[in-house]
Amino acid sequence: MIEKMNLTMLTDFYEITMANGYYGAGMKDEIAVFDMFFRRIPDDGGYAIMAGLEQVIEYLKKLEFTQEDIEYLRGKELFTEEFLQYLLDFEFTCDVWAVPEGTPIFPGEPLITVRGPVIQAQFVESMILLIVNHQSLIATKASRLVRAADGRPIMEFGTRRAHGTAAALYGARAACIGGCEGTACTIADEYFGTKAMGTMAHSWVQMFDSEYEAFHTYCEMYPTNATLLVDTYNTLKSGIPAAIKVFKELDPPRKGIRIDSGDITYLTKQARKMLDEAGLEDCHIVISNSLDENIIRSVILEGACIDSFGVGEKLITAKSEPVFGGVYKLVAMEKDGKVIPKIKISENTEKITNPGFKKLYRLFDKDTHRLLGDIIALSHEEPPSGEFVEIFDPNAVWKRKKITNYYAKDLREQIFDKGKCVYQSPPIDEIKAYCAEQQDRMWDEMKRFDHPQVYYVDLSHELWELKRRMIEEAKEGVGVEE
Amino acid sequence: MIEKMNLTMLTDFYEITMANGYYGAGMKDEIAVFDMFFRRIPDDGGYAIMAGLEQVIEYLKKLEFTQEDIEYLRGKELFTEEFLQYLLDFEFTCDVWAVPEGTPIFPGEPLITVRGPVIQAQFVESMILLIVNHQSLIATKASRLVRAADGRPIMEFGTRRAHGTAAALYGARAACIGGCEGTACTIADEYFGTKAMGTMAHSWVQMFDSEYEAFHTYCEMYPTNATLLVDTYNTLKSGIPAAIKVFKELDPPRKGIRIDSGDITYLTKQARKMLDEAGLEDCHIVISNSLDENIIRSVILEGACIDSFGVGEKLITAKSEPVFGGVYKLVAMEKDGKVIPKIKISENTEKITNPGFKKLYRLFDKDTHRLLGDIIALSHEEPPSGEFVEIFDPNAVWKRKKITNYYAKDLREQIFDKGKCVYQSPPIDEIKAYCAEQQDRMWDEMKRFDHPQVYYVDLSHELWELKRRMIEEAKEGVGVEE
Repeated sequence: MIEKMNLTMLTDFYEITMANGYYGAGMKDEIAVFDMFFRRIPDDGGYAIMAGLEQVIEYLKKLEFTQEDIEYLRGKELFTEEFLQYLLDFEFTCDVWAVPEGTPIFPGEPLITVRGPVIQAQFVESMILLIVNHQSLIATKASRLVRAADGRPIMEFGTRRAHGTAAALYGARAACIGGCEGTACTIADEYFGTKAMGTMAHSWVQMFDSEYEAFHTYCEMYPTNATLLVDTYNTLKSGIPAAIKVFKELDPPRKGIRIDSGDITYLTKQARKMLDEAGLEDCHIVISNSLDENIIRSVILEGACIDSFGVGEKLITAKSEPVFGGVYKLVAMEKDGKVIPKIKISENTEKITNPGFKKLYRLFDKDTHRLLGDIIALSHEEPPSGEFVEIFDPNAVWKRKKITNYYAKDLREQIFDKGKCVYQSPPIDEIKAYCAEQQDRMWDEMKRFDHPQVYYVDLSHELWELKRRMIEEAKEGVGVEE
Repeated sequence: MIEKMNLTMLTDFYEITMANGYYGAGMKDEIAVFDMFFRRIPDDGGYAIMAGLEQVIEYLKKLEFTQEDIEYLRGKELFTEEFLQYLLDFEFTCDVWAVPEGTPIFPGEPLITVRGPVIQAQFVESMILLIVNHQSLIATKASRLVRAADGRPIMEFGTRRAHGTAAALYGARAACIGGCEGTACTIADEYFGTKAMGTMAHSWVQMFDSEYEAFHTYCEMYPTNATLLVDTYNTLKSGIPAAIKVFKELDPPRKGIRIDSGDITYLTKQARKMLDEAGLEDCHIVISNSLDENIIRSVILEGACIDSFGVGEKLITAKSEPVFGGVYKLVAMEKDGKVIPKIKISENTEKITNPGFKKLYRLFDKDTHRLLGDIIALSHEEPPSGEFVEIFDPNAVWKRKKITNYYAKDLREQIFDKGKCVYQSPPIDEIKAYCAEQQDRMWDEMKRFDHPQVYYVDLSHELWELKRRMIEEAKEGVGVEE
């Protein structure tokens, strides 16, 4: 079993210089509010999938600086002894709210909010981003692949191409949240219960004098797991004939062949024909050669005969777009019990943050329970409950839409209450089922691969007004004292 | 400090089903030889950089199945009790050879060779690939960035976008091997001594009533680390004027500004002018906004005034090509003391493996010590030592070239001798220096970003003959018994 690591020091160095700065400036206990959100859906998709919260919680629960950490920091000759002592006694006392794992998420939404003493709330930035960016990236990619496979199972096969050990383990976890049936990554199964799968490599076949012998030995040993890799020498001329011969002799209860090279459509059609003609209609065909959602969709359209897919590098690295650009921004301070909203201005309109301590509501259709739109509101605002809600596009305010026959749900749960964890992560199967169910509630137009319908994510009127006013004030000039 | 993890179970599930298979078939102690090699240089570059060996060694030293692992495997109802007992007593007894970290490497070269009982030599496949693929990917990308920056330091700033914790930690390590000056990743410094760097986020600036106040507080606290982030509100109108004011008042011995948004060339030229006019010629300008080697080259060409770069997501994920496609293939067996070469045929010519137990020689110019070409030979062959070596392109055998005035170096070291580690990894600074020195020995033509000169990697005549013969034999049909 994997041992727990102390990841407290896995942080950008500037989190520590700022922490020492807040300590030294006497500001450490000023209350700050930070939002984690992302700006763009990878692959220009219609939605992303939230993942990684369980690991964020583990991290926050275990924040602790060791004597060795302090020694290391002391060696930098940048930090005061009082601050180093503070770190030794460090205790996390913030409030945290978050969108549960498996939830479809959209740009600009506060996925995680951390409220508490600035010295702490700032410090946890790097790891919150690292974890949620990584797992949401892979869960989102997996959901694309699963959609493309149109009911055929997808297995995550990317361990050897993952960016390090954690990418393999937590990537497999995230892939299963996004809908993968299983993984080749054994430790992910042992640790999280994401079904581990696999049979043989080409080397198994090469170790025997013939494919027949390699397959025969394997099927005798694993009648319930007999998926034979048939492309070591020549798929149609030697691999499949040898597999058929062995299947007919031994009749293992669970038969399959795996093809890992060559033209998928051609080979699987030929393979299906050969298997059927041999009376092996129950033999599955598994494909695993540099697949992504585009190849999967296109070979299915071409009528390839495939029962399931193994997807490696293009899933575990999210190759087409390997960055989930989540950021963590200061949105408010509290002074004398009063919330002071903060904004980050940028010349790029979409980089301007939504100020204030906020909530996130999702509107569902009362009858079909379909997703209708999301509203980001200030935390003191009541959830939408009137007969209708008028939503509008914050980047095009003349676009307005009345939503009726809805109910609103606070999309986030409180995770920590003054540093105490008040949330229990569900087991992976539950998260996966919830994720699939939430995707079922989305319009097909949002799930399109190219040019999906853009989901409504709107600001409450009060938040919009606040933002507009703060942008105006910022433009009038901030900060330089003459 | 990070705790060591037991990563024995971080393996593709098929490694375990094959291991049980070899055990059950009475083949477990048959001697097999596996090569790890890669097929393509990422980004169509002229060379890649070997990295990750230190972690491979750690992994191999710590191979151990716990009682919990065995319980988990028993629950699968696929494995025999004898096999599970074997795993409990598992001991790694293989020989391992490898190319040292920091070495420029090329497609097809046996970077790591594992020779030993097939049950073991096969089992370690997943982790060897995972580690070397990841770190070589990042080291190679870093070397591109460093080359593009043309003498200006590059800092690795990608922790928050890394694919999980190990990608941040080991990615920072690999980036430093590839030539980065430092990293934002604190734990990488604590653990490996890759200099950690960083100052402040936008939130630091936002926490104060003005940029002036934020900067003043910071400079008083960190006179030797005073790089001020100037783009929170308006870079030219408020950020830089506030920084100048503070620098003039406090005159910290190490001054810098960081710009994280906007047009790099325009802003840095203006910034340089403003700083110089204020008499702050010694103030550094650091840039850090979604940089990659193309942007870096182009802003330098445009005359941007930049002293150093912070590179985030595009380095830590190797965004332009996030997969280093290393593979691990059976190349020989031994029977009755005789080496029996093995080959994997494929319809893709470049996917055909080089058979046999092999060595790797690099030829250097006797006077300039420049790299002249590499030769992959069978292990019993003597290193090239004659007056000249005739090398030829294995994919175009009529292309021949005589190399003279050379000396040959066995490029690999023995790492394990019958399971005992006989190699000591150098400290990171040594690896980094060696890597830089080896790159200096390459022709500029190989380091070109577009269409670099292809380096000579040739097979010895004996190996080429063996490969040709085995392909012929394979074409004549293998494996199906009628």
